[in-house]
Order: sequence, then structure tokens, then C-alpha cells
Amino acid sequence: MHIKRIRYSEYHKLITSPSEAAKLINKNDILGVSGFTKAGDSKSVLPEIAKRALSEELSLTVLSGASLGYNTDADLAKNGALHKRLPFQADPTLRKAINNHEVLYVDQHLSYTAEMLQNISEYRIDVAIIEAVSITEDGYIVPTTSVGNSASFAQNANKIIIEVNTSMPLDFQGMHDVKLQKKQPHREVINITEVDDRIGEPYIKIAPDKVIAVVYTNVPDCPAVIAAPDDKTSAISKHILTFLEKEVEAGRLTNSLLPLQAGIGKIANAVLSGFTKSNFDNLTMYSEVLQDSTFELFDSGKLSFASASSITVTEGCLKNMVQHFDKYKDKLILRPQNISNAGEVIRRLGVIAINTAIEFDMYGNVNSTHITGTKMMNGIGGSGDFARNAYLSIFVCPSISKENKISHIVPMVSHTDHTEHDVDILVTEQGLADIRGLAPRERAEVIIENCVHPFYKKQLLDYFKEASAAGGQTPHILEKAFSWHTNLIENGTMKFPELVNQ
Amino acid sequence: MHIKRIRYSEYHKLITSPSEAAKLINKNDILGVSGFTKAGDSKSVLPEIAKRALSEELSLTVLSGASLGYNTDADLAKNGALHKRLPFQADPTLRKAINNHEVLYVDQHLSYTAEMLQNISEYRIDVAIIEAVSITEDGYIVPTTSVGNSASFAQNANKIIIEVNTSMPLDFQGMHDVKLQKKQPHREVINITEVDDRIGEPYIKIAPDKVIAVVYTNVPDCPAVIAAPDDKTSAISKHILTFLEKEVEAGRLTNSLLPLQAGIGKIANAVLSGFTKSNFDNLTMYSEVLQDSTFELFDSGKLSFASASSITVTEGCLKNMVQHFDKYKDKLILRPQNISNAGEVIRRLGVIAINTAIEFDMYGNVNSTHITGTKMMNGIGGSGDFARNAYLSIFVCPSISKENKISHIVPMVSHTDHTEHDVDILVTEQGLADIRGLAPRERAEVIIENCVHPFYKKQLLDYFKEASAAGGQTPHILEKAFSWHTNLIENGTMKFPELVNQ
Repeated sequence: MHIKRIRYSEYHKLITSPSEAAKLINKNDILGVSGFTKAGDSKSVLPEIAKRALSEELSLTVLSGASLGYNTDADLAKNGALHKRLPFQADPTLRKAINNHEVLYVDQHLSYTAEMLQNISEYRIDVAIIEAVSITEDGYIVPTTSVGNSASFAQNANKIIIEVNTSMPLDFQGMHDVKLQKKQPHREVINITEVDDRIGEPYIKIAPDKVIAVVYTNVPDCPAVIAAPDDKTSAISKHILTFLEKEVEAGRLTNSLLPLQAGIGKIANAVLSGFTKSNFDNLTMYSEVLQDSTFELFDSGKLSFASASSITVTEGCLKNMVQHFDKYKDKLILRPQNISNAGEVIRRLGVIAINTAIEFDMYGNVNSTHITGTKMMNGIGGSGDFARNAYLSIFVCPSISKENKISHIVPMVSHTDHTEHDVDILVTEQGLADIRGLAPRERAEVIIENCVHPFYKKQLLDYFKEASAAGGQTPHILEKAFSWHTNLIENGTMKFPELVNQ
Repeated sequence: MHIKRIRYSEYHKLITSPSEAAKLINKNDILGVSGFTKAGDSKSVLPEIAKRALSEELSLTVLSGASLGYNTDADLAKNGALHKRLPFQADPTLRKAINNHEVLYVDQHLSYTAEMLQNISEYRIDVAIIEAVSITEDGYIVPTTSVGNSASFAQNANKIIIEVNTSMPLDFQGMHDVKLQKKQPHREVINITEVDDRIGEPYIKIAPDKVIAVVYTNVPDCPAVIAAPDDKTSAISKHILTFLEKEVEAGRLTNSLLPLQAGIGKIANAVLSGFTKSNFDNLTMYSEVLQDSTFELFDSGKLSFASASSITVTEGCLKNMVQHFDKYKDKLILRPQNISNAGEVIRRLGVIAINTAIEFDMYGNVNSTHITGTKMMNGIGGSGDFARNAYLSIFVCPSISKENKISHIVPMVSHTDHTEHDVDILVTEQGLADIRGLAPRERAEVIIENCVHPFYKKQLLDYFKEASAAGGQTPHILEKAFSWHTNLIENGTMKFPELVNQ
């Protein structure tokens, strides 16, 4: 096995068990770990580190690509191993620890972590832990189902631990395109002008003398669980497809559109799935994560190429992909997240970006991260990288949830992640608001008309009218701007009692 | 004069008076006019159009580069000529008309207007009005003290009116570098890797048959009025210089730093002036507007090159520049604002961006546009283009104003233009907060400690403590988040009565 998986013999003497490797971490270390939306994460060493925290005090700072799989983040948090976590997480236990002030959390644009590592020294990585399919003859790392920040971590780290995952097929080698950028003033152009352009190398180049341990694992990625499209997500998908068809009719887009990006989750996946039955053709993706829908689109013949930083799919989809990898391998590139999410490339390619909002307001500001303004849900992820630079910045969410108790369109968002300046299209199952080129008060009319659920329409119109009476570019009544949220906290619903029958 | 100024003889028959040219505009036209921060704007035709509105109904949509000079925006607004204005303004009369709902205003990233013109057809320009130093042998326009959106307007417009300004020296020709970008999927790399790279042509290429009138003017640009540095702005400047010196000491920057950008206005100008007495050397600028401070820096030998979209200086500075243009001309480039403000280039060069905030909050969110959340001041301008992509995103403002009645650091900004994800350094005359890599609660401590005026420190600490008690990633008490603003509106001060003696 070593011969195929670890082709650099100097590492053979470093092969050890995950628990032994976990002992090489110091109490206050800063760790840079592979893993992006559950794909390609550490499946043995990091869990072993979490176990160590059961019997000894650890206060680690853990940087990853994005969210990790299985219960690794939960165990790290539960066992008190974490001082700080960045740049993204999506784990219920960790989320709770963050909101309870047990763990500090830095919520960053996913493209930004690599910049931060270059620009400030506070986050110098002590140990990088990186999953590999194999190790090349020169000791370089061939990543698995994600690239994430692994190359930046490896470059920045003092020491490196490699997890060779034998459940991943060797023929993943060649799928990756790894390119790091130099610090300014030596930064080069990112020379990607087509989604399938390659600008780097198919492995992560490292200094072999940094490697302190190599372990084997054979655990596949924690499978994605994706809910089947339902009435709401199907309606959202349909609104977007209809809108894009009209853009093609108007001559603003061709039938192969422009490269698509879709955030992770049920709605985005349903929207992309919708394209399989569309009249669009020869589609491409320039995204951060590829979900099941990407492979449906390949199989339906609609999609010709997909670039991203990770592949996060269900168990069945992963098995199929691995078994028929020949069919897909020339159509896929995985890149570091500083490239997959580079504003420069997103703007140049003209990406059509579809991301999920927690709530948006009647003027087009979007909250992607905080529940009632204070509690962290997951994080901004790559939504800001894409929304700011996209050709079309689309945000989607249901109009209501929790049996009508929550309206996802509010007078003022309780936390702003994407400002009015960066949002083009808003979609709920009720309809689509095209707010491109509109002034705030024009936007409010289009959003209230098209996106708000009938149960909240009058309530929002009332607010808009009352606020408008006092004038202003962006009319608000500051005393009442969050009244829907405070009503939810106090009375369990955003609906005001006096309007409950309207 | 024609021979030197209008070297394309076909235009000679189109020479007319400003009032005749103004008659070529139709009632509901969309106009694209030159002008960026008062520089290079239309000084005769657009004012004549404003006059027309005194005696007939006009409902124009006016797009510019940025703000216009003299009273043009005021007259357009006062005379009721405007239906809609974008992407920026800074005129008190127009501002009032916007906030009174007499004029619609679309406040955009300055880099974005060119994108919008390519992407949607609602803003197809009927007539472009562009100031020129001269017209080339091929009928192309040599711009004056700004490039702004003029090239985009000329390309997009059905008709073009040219104002040849004879007060501008002919040797401005060669200062400009004009490059438009193709619509995706044909968009190219913006191949600027150094501030002095030229990628375009020294004139605005137009189709001569679009030109419907040429007029002469000889009015210089409306001069900038810049307040001399005072105690507050000098203190802000000093904090920034000290911080940058420490970054050099730490080896993170060299003594020539990275290219500087500074927003328009008194504070930014004072900060840049401060560099003349610093130990930094061989500085460069990649900015959107050059103020007097740029020429002070040239004259002090500190600055080696400056790239921007406009030159907006005081009367004396303009006279000096024109008289000694030989001294400056090899050190200056003026570019279209889609290039001067291109995120791609700003990130690649690693710009140090210094912009002014109206207020910021204890978590690092910045309001650049709205007074108490509703009333427009000027607009976001290029601050978002730079802040998002900068190597260092710095925001500055005084800690208090109006005799202590307003604190510019608040619990929650009343309007968000720059989110916590895009802000690195916050500075008031009190001190500097370096919030890079910090979690929200860590930021609050640093910001309250370093930036808040003593008159408001306890009041903000009290809020932070009360909010933190309830937990959350970004602790807030939604009912009280805007209490400082509502107190200001109701009682004329942000200070709570019970804390007035603390």
C-alpha cells in the first residue's frame, strides 16, 4: 500500500497511529485543518485531539477551509478543546458553544483566510493536518474531495501531519489545480478566463521536512443529507429559471448562460436540479462546493464543466462518482478557496451567484448569518465573495417559516452581511424581485409585491408607508425597525396581534 | 483654435452654443455626463439644461462619474429637472430633494455603474455630455481632469455632446489611460500589476457619427475647498502613521508601504498630508481622486506615482499643476472608474485604503451614507470597492461632534455600507483599533478602549455588558440598538440623561 499511497519513502518512518499523531499537538496550538463543507476533512487525528481534551486542558485555535464532517466540531466544542474557530462552521453543538461564549468565532469571507495568513502573523499555523489521497514522489500532497485552505495552511505551518485516506480512489490525482498567490507587491494576475483553465499544479507542494507524522484512514467523507425538493424550493427554482429564460429572450444572456454558483443546502441544490429539465444547454459552474445536483446536471448532459473547492455529496452520489470517475474527471477542477472564491475571477467570468439568505429586508439588504441579530447560525461562507462580484447576485429564501410565525422579509435586517449595493435579485416561493438599478423606495415596492407572503404583506406595507411619510432615502422608523424581531422573541411570532386576522 | 482643439474637421459644422446644444435633450432622456468629484464635469450644457427646466417640464435621469461641480446638481434639483440621479452626489440642495422624495437616487459602488450599463438595458444612455481638452484627428475625445464613466457613457450612448474646455492645457493629452471591458463571457484580465501600468489608450474612442454638437467653454473646474488640518484630523493622521511605522518594524510592510488610496474630504486629505513629514519613501497611490495632498507629496519627494480617476484640487493647486505640468505628467495616470476602482486591481496591488465613516459600531460595521439610518448624506462612492479588496481597510472619523452631542461610535450602525467582514482598522482622534482577525466581542473591547470619546465610553461599555449577558456571537439588545440615534432625534443628544455627568 505504501508504494502506491506514499510514494516518498522518507515519510515511511513517520507513519504512526492517529492517537500518537494527536499527541504531537500542544495545548495552545493554532491548527490549520483540511476540510470544506464536510469534504476532505481530518477523520482520525482531529477526532483524536478532541478525545485528548476529555482528560487534559486544550485551548486550540482551529482554522479550516469551511465546515467539517461527522461530529468533529461538536466533539472539539463539547470537550472544551476550542479557544477560537474560523472561518466557517455549521455544527449545532459548536454553534451553541459560540453563542454561549465558550468559543470565539471569526466569521470570514472564505476567500479571505489565505489573505489574513499572509498579512498578519497572529495566526501563524503551528500544525497543519491535511487529508491526502496519496503523496507524490517528491513528498507533495494530493488532496481528496476538497482543497480549501490546505495549501495556505501547509505553506504557513511550522509542522504538517498528513492523513492518507485509502477510501479515496488514487485516480483523484489530476483533479486538483493548486495555486497560491504571492504577497503584495508581488501578487500576480489570476489567469483564469474560462472555468476549465488550469493555472497551478495537481498537488500541494510542501517542504517535506515540515512533516512530523503520516497516518492512514479509510473513512469516506461524512455524507451530505439533502432534502428532496418540496413545493417551496421547486417554486423558487421555477422563478429563477423563468427569469433566466427571459434574460435569454432579451438577448442579455445566451442559452448557456454564464457560469453558475450555488451555495450549499436544500434550496440551492433544488434550484440547480431544476436546470436538468430546462432548455439551457452547455452550462458551466464556477462555484465553491459541488452538490448532488452538479452530478445530475452532468448526467443529464446539461453541464459541460464544473470548478469548485470541494465535492460534498450524498452517499449514493459519492459511490457513483468514484465508480464512474472516468466519466467525470475531465469535467472537474477543485481549486484552493482563495481561487474558487476570488473576486477577480468571479467578476471576470460573470458568475450567476445563487445564495441562501436567513432574511432580507424591503430595501434589499441581506442577513446570511445571525438569528434575530445576535445568535450565529453558520457563517457568511463564500456568499459575499460571490454576491459582490457576480454578474447576477441572487438571494433565495422561503417567505415564511415556523407555521407563519417568521417572515423572512422584514423591515430592516437584524444583521447585515450583504448590503443593498450587492444584491440584484431576491426570490421566495412567492415570486422574484428584480431590483437592479432601482432606488431604495422602488426596491421596497417590488420586494413587497413579489416576495412577501400574503400573511405579512399588509404589515410590511404599513411599515413602509409610515416610514415613508417621514421622508429619507431609506425610510425607517428606528424605534420600530426591529419590532418584528422583538415581537418574535417576546410573543413567538412576527405577526402583530392587531393584524393577526388580516 | 479649432485647429488645435478640434482636430477632426467633420465636427466643425457641429459647433454650437451651449443653449442650442441643451435643446437637443428630450424631456425624459437618460443622460450620461462626465465629472468625478467636481472634476471634468459639464460646465455649460448641463447648466443650460437646468435652465430649460425653469420654463418646461423635464424628468431626466442623470448618470455621472461621481459628484458634479458648481451648483449644477443643485440647479437641476431646484428647477425640477431630475427624475433620478446616480451613482453619487454630494450637493446639499440635491441631497434635500432626494430625502424629500423629489428625486430618486441610486447609490452605487463607483466601479459598478459601467457593469450595470453592460448588464441591463433600462439605463441605455440617450445623450452623453463629455468635457474634453481636445478632439483627436480621428474624432476621439481627450478628457480633462477626470475620466470617470465618460468612456462607458460614450460607448453606450445614442448621441454625444462634447464640451471643449479651453481653460484646460492641451498637454493634458497623454495623462489618461482609457480601457473599457468587454461584457462577459469575453471579459479580459485587467493587466495592471504596477500603479503606473498602462493598458489602454490616451483618449476616449467614440463613433464620430454619434456626435450631435460640440461647444466651447473656458471655465476651470469648481475648485476644491479643503479645510486645514486641525487637532482632530492631525491626531487621526498621527495614529495611522504610527500604526504603519509599526507594521514596517514588524516586517509586514516595506518603507514604501503599498499603494495608498484616500477618500475625498478633509480627514483623508489631512492623513495623506501627514505622510510628507514621515519617514516613508517612494510612496505610490492607486486611488480614485487626487487632492492637494497628492501634489504636496509629489513636491516633498515622498510620492513617486499616482493613479486615479480624477484630480480635484484647490484653485492654487490647480494653477500650480497646470503651470508646472511637465514636472507631474510622467507621474500621473487618470483611468476610467471601472479600472481605478476595480476590485481585481485593488486586491492585486494590495492597496492601503483610507476612507471616512459617518459612524461605526462596536463590532466594526461602518455606515458611510445615512444620517440616523434614513437620510442620505452623499453616497458610498468608491469606499466599498476599496474596503472590500484592500490589503488594509482603514476607516476614520472623529469620535464625537456637535459639542459632544453625537458619538460616531454607536452600539449598532443605523445603516450598513461596510460589514464587519470588510473592516481592518478604525481610527478616531482618540486612537486606533486594529481589529484584524478578531471575533466580534474581541473587536468591541478594542474599539471601545481605543476609539470612543471618554464622554461616551461608559455608556457604550454599559450597553456592551448588558447585551453580552444574553449571549450571542454579536450581542445586541434589539430594543436598544438604536436608542442612541432615537435619543439624538428626540432630545438632541446621544448621551442619556442619567449618564450626563459621567
